[in-house]
Amino acid sequence: MNHERLQKQIEFIVEIDKIKHILRKTLLMDGTRHENDAEHSWHLGVMAILLSEYSNKKDLDVLRVLKMVLVHDIVEIDAGDTFCYDEKGCLDKREREEKAADRIFGILPDDQAREIRDLWEEFEECETPEARFANALDRFQPLLHNYITRGRSWKEHGITRDRVIKRNRPIQDGSEQLWAYVEKLVEDSVDKGYLPE
Amino acid sequence: MNHERLQKQIEFIVEIDKIKHILRKTLLMDGTRHENDAEHSWHLGVMAILLSEYSNKKDLDVLRVLKMVLVHDIVEIDAGDTFCYDEKGCLDKREREEKAADRIFGILPDDQAREIRDLWEEFEECETPEARFANALDRFQPLLHNYITRGRSWKEHGITRDRVIKRNRPIQDGSEQLWAYVEKLVEDSVDKGYLPE
Repeated sequence: MNHERLQKQIEFIVEIDKIKHILRKTLLMDGTRHENDAEHSWHLGVMAILLSEYSNKKDLDVLRVLKMVLVHDIVEIDAGDTFCYDEKGCLDKREREEKAADRIFGILPDDQAREIRDLWEEFEECETPEARFANALDRFQPLLHNYITRGRSWKEHGITRDRVIKRNRPIQDGSEQLWAYVEKLVEDSVDKGYLPE
Repeated sequence: MNHERLQKQIEFIVEIDKIKHILRKTLLMDGTRHENDAEHSWHLGVMAILLSEYSNKKDLDVLRVLKMVLVHDIVEIDAGDTFCYDEKGCLDKREREEKAADRIFGILPDDQAREIRDLWEEFEECETPEARFANALDRFQPLLHNYITRGRSWKEHGITRDRVIKRNRPIQDGSEQLWAYVEKLVEDSVDKGYLPE
C-alpha cells in the first residue's frame, strides 16, 4: 500500500468534515433550524437515486450524478454558501470558489484532485445531461423545503414568484417532468400565500 | 407522467428529512456537537468515491456501494440510533429496524420500496463485496472521528481497546488495506491516551 496516498485521502476526508458547519438559507422541513451542506448533499443523493427516471436523458449515468451532488458544495468550506438570490454575492462567487477548489481538492492525490475538480466543474458548467439533472435536483430540493415550511425562507428574504420561476427554470433542462411539477408547486405556493405574487 | 408515482416519491423525500435530527454518538471532528445520520451518510458517500480502490474486491460496483451508504440509516428515523457498543440496544435492534423499514420504505412506489429495502438488507447482511465495503466505511468513519477528537466519545462511554478492535475487525472483510491502517490508528490512540488499554 502507498501510505502517502492514503494519508492524503484521509487528510481530505478530515478536512471536509467542516462542510457540516456550512449553513444554507434553507430551513429543515420542520422549520427548527437551517440546513447544512452535508445534509443538503445527502438529500440530493437519495433524490438522484429515486428521481433519475424523470431525467430528460434516458440511461443517465446515475453514478456520475451521485458523485457530482456529493461533492458539489465542498468548495463552500472556504467560499461560504452564496444565497441563490444574492446578486452581489454571485458576482465574485466563481472566483472565491475556484480558490477554494485549488486548496481543498489539492489536498488529494493528483489523480483524485483532478477527478473531483472535473466533477465540480462539470456541475458548475451544467452542459452534460448528468450535470443538468444534478443542477435540477439542487434547485428542486430547497424549493420543496420552502413549500413544506410554508415559504418561510422566501418570506424572510422578500422573494417573489417571478424570482423563484427565474431561478428554477433550469430544472427544465434536466427534467421536463420535474419542471412541470415545480410549476404547480409554485402556483400552489402563491395560492396558499407562501410566496408573494 | 404518472402523478401518483411522483407524489409517493416526494412524500418519501419529505419524510426522510427527519434523518437530519437523528443524532449519533459520534462528535463532529471539531468536537462542537454530535453528528447526525444525514451528515454521516454523506461522509460515507464521499469516502466510497475516494477509497473504493482499497476494497478487497477489484472492480467494485461503486454505484451500489453509494446507494447503500446513502440509505443505510433511514430506518433510524423510527428506530433511533443504536450505539454500536450498546449490547442491550442491539438485542432488539433488528426488530425495531424491520418495522421502521416496513413503514418508511412502504411510502415509495412498490418497485422502489423493494429496491431500497433490498439495498438496506444487503447492507445489513454484509455478505456481498459491496456490502462488506460499505460496512467497512460505516465503521471506519466514526473511528476516524474518535481519533481526531482525541477519543472523546470512547472516553465518555468507557470504551476500551479490545472493544474497539472487536467492533471494527469486520473492516478487514471489506478492505485488508483499510484494516491495516485502522490497526495503526488504534495503537496510536492507545499510545496517545485517547483510548484506554
